[in-house]
Amino acid sequence: MFQKILVANRGEIAVRIIRSCMYMGIKTVAVYSEVDKDSLHVQLADESVCIGGAKSSESYLNMENIISAAIHTGSEAIHPGFGFLSENPAFAELCETCGIVFIGPKSHTISLMGNKSKAREMMIQAGVPVVPGSEGSVKDLNEGKAIAEKITYPVLIKASAGGGGRGMRIAFKKEDFSTAFETAKTEAKNAFGDQTMYIEKYIENPKHIEVQVLCDKYGNVLHLGERDCSIQRRNQKVIEEAPSLISKSLRDKMTDVAIKACKHVQYENAGTIEFLVSNNEFYFIEMNTRIQVEHPVTEMITQIDIISEQIKIAAGEKLVMKQNDIHFHGHSIECRINAENPKNQFRPSPGDLHLFHMPSGPGVRFDSFIYSGSKILPHYDSMIGKMIVHGKNRDEAIKKMQAALEELVVQGIQTNQSFLYLILHEPCYLKGDFDTSFIESHLESLLEYDEHE
Amino acid sequence: MFQKILVANRGEIAVRIIRSCMYMGIKTVAVYSEVDKDSLHVQLADESVCIGGAKSSESYLNMENIISAAIHTGSEAIHPGFGFLSENPAFAELCETCGIVFIGPKSHTISLMGNKSKAREMMIQAGVPVVPGSEGSVKDLNEGKAIAEKITYPVLIKASAGGGGRGMRIAFKKEDFSTAFETAKTEAKNAFGDQTMYIEKYIENPKHIEVQVLCDKYGNVLHLGERDCSIQRRNQKVIEEAPSLISKSLRDKMTDVAIKACKHVQYENAGTIEFLVSNNEFYFIEMNTRIQVEHPVTEMITQIDIISEQIKIAAGEKLVMKQNDIHFHGHSIECRINAENPKNQFRPSPGDLHLFHMPSGPGVRFDSFIYSGSKILPHYDSMIGKMIVHGKNRDEAIKKMQAALEELVVQGIQTNQSFLYLILHEPCYLKGDFDTSFIESHLESLLEYDEHE
Repeated sequence: MFQKILVANRGEIAVRIIRSCMYMGIKTVAVYSEVDKDSLHVQLADESVCIGGAKSSESYLNMENIISAAIHTGSEAIHPGFGFLSENPAFAELCETCGIVFIGPKSHTISLMGNKSKAREMMIQAGVPVVPGSEGSVKDLNEGKAIAEKITYPVLIKASAGGGGRGMRIAFKKEDFSTAFETAKTEAKNAFGDQTMYIEKYIENPKHIEVQVLCDKYGNVLHLGERDCSIQRRNQKVIEEAPSLISKSLRDKMTDVAIKACKHVQYENAGTIEFLVSNNEFYFIEMNTRIQVEHPVTEMITQIDIISEQIKIAAGEKLVMKQNDIHFHGHSIECRINAENPKNQFRPSPGDLHLFHMPSGPGVRFDSFIYSGSKILPHYDSMIGKMIVHGKNRDEAIKKMQAALEELVVQGIQTNQSFLYLILHEPCYLKGDFDTSFIESHLESLLEYDEHE
Repeated sequence: MFQKILVANRGEIAVRIIRSCMYMGIKTVAVYSEVDKDSLHVQLADESVCIGGAKSSESYLNMENIISAAIHTGSEAIHPGFGFLSENPAFAELCETCGIVFIGPKSHTISLMGNKSKAREMMIQAGVPVVPGSEGSVKDLNEGKAIAEKITYPVLIKASAGGGGRGMRIAFKKEDFSTAFETAKTEAKNAFGDQTMYIEKYIENPKHIEVQVLCDKYGNVLHLGERDCSIQRRNQKVIEEAPSLISKSLRDKMTDVAIKACKHVQYENAGTIEFLVSNNEFYFIEMNTRIQVEHPVTEMITQIDIISEQIKIAAGEKLVMKQNDIHFHGHSIECRINAENPKNQFRPSPGDLHLFHMPSGPGVRFDSFIYSGSKILPHYDSMIGKMIVHGKNRDEAIKKMQAALEELVVQGIQTNQSFLYLILHEPCYLKGDFDTSFIESHLESLLEYDEHE
């Protein structure tokens, strides 16, 4: 096992990784930008190295300085967390070249999965359902109709050069096709001077559901079940939960497919395969080749420390668990607490945290890096913590989250606490009747809270 | 289910009870003494009532004021927590008389278990092993010898009027008996003018192990396994863990006996049966007819919220779980964080908490009522919080506790944090090789920490 790991990140995920290292008896090196010198991850690590200025490009994205820090401190491995360099194949490769273990998949796997069309191709080879489409441009109306029949309605007709909704039409049924196709084409021609058209299946009101996997270097692949991350705002996840509310048979299909996909790409380490789910069908979107923000909900229902597993896999350990050893208990929900003002277009709200009170208790966890007196910096992501609860079932988890959000105190900056609280009381959310459009379609009522709450 | 519960306590247990009520959607009423008006339990409850002065006798022990507060606020039930009125049969009876549900056993059960000799008698009837003894005074040397043979050596020869170790001798083997008996008798005669002697089994280096039970009003009794609470200082528990390190066969025997005992006394609600364990034998000490400080370690390994169960039972609900539904996972440890100075005879250290940082993360929980800026009052118990961890096994739980104690920051008052940290690194503790004498026998080395750590 590694003696020392450098954590190439900041904020809550850096703290989270350092904690798992402490549990494993591994020494840690924090890296930090000039403005982050008082940050909790620096205080918790055994050593720390300043790697540059406040701008991410000068510090947390500065590969050379990070590698130098690792070499200088004798770190055997680097955990990249999420964001920053975590899905940068050049960084993973640089680590490999320098003889430092990158805690994640091989650089070529990161590269492959980062290229959307290659990833899609690999997934098709592996038998993973992808959003059905024309696989290239559509010659004319007749070919378009034939493809639409094949992939079944509704379909999305898209201009190759399109953007901002222009040159794009939905055909809900056969009778709509000709008009939609011709309108989109004309619009594309006028707007972009290019009438190349594609067709793909229109996924109606999808849920975003993803499967967590763990793969060692010896071809052993395990799934840790799935998470529902449909509560999003502008493709940013806001609330996640595990398990999702899909049927057992759909879950079995999705987890089977996820395992096949991992085996096909000879995946190593922890990863997530993201799907859109609609009408009991699921379609691959992308694979995240890193730890995800929402990993704790899976930890809560499996009692498996995913960060530790990442480290053990990277160190060359074999997965000791078998799929049958993984048991799922209860239900977990995570809310991302952001320093932002939902009433002002969710604008970030950095500043000084005067008072912070963190709820705790049975099944309540708060992963964060803030403390009373800490500063929320304007230079980085606005997420200041993740409230995570576990209950016997979804109802109990929801009640705990309601209570935890009520108890949480963050004074000095604006947060989305009240906004989250209203989601947690919204009837459709409570019933589980939601998809990725939930926040957008309920936005008005979700902002109806008292500013001073 | 109750609509509103009054919590007749303060500090962390009041907060803990309020949290479970919030999870269950039950309104809460806090009661507080004049000096406790800013306390967290008051802030978290839906309503609060001042019940008197700082002195416990004027407030938290003031039955009339508490009952008045319950009636005035329309509370249907009172949760007494631990300490204060929780094992006062007169208070339970007063609740019963006033038509308020006391969340705990019936007053006559509290009364019965509070009387040590009656409790012992009941346990003998139920077939529970008690410390074997002469069951009354010993006539002479010969009768003494016969009894000692029967209960097997070593035996403790005690003067009925004895105290402070005087008139007390241990006979480790038959050959020692005559001398020990005569010496103790003479000493007793000289010291107390009374030479009435008793004999009981001398329990060598016992572990303190207790079984948690849940009993509904319909005769259903469940055990939630056992806890080891041997790490004590002057009979005050300091560190607890679950499960204990006893063999499966001993565990089965102890939990069987605990269930029998509960059935025999028609016990209702949550309770704990405490045993001394030595040389693979166990002996009843007492039954605690209330929630215990250390209940979270059981919650962590069973994922059962014991406070909720107490409330459901008190409301007349049947236990829905069967014994087979209760699964034990991993290992949990609790450290009691006290505002005290171990280097100064563990003197309480009340004062203003300038900065408080609470660790969190997978399997880390901190039950408390403190926050940055809160006051630790000199009027009450010095326990300010309970650090609780859960790991796959004891080793992992220990590593997590070490990490959590390292991360915890409490500034402004003295605490036993470093003392606990040293226990968590003491080789005998790590091996599980300890009994109730552990702290006393290691005290010197456990105080060898830097005051400024």
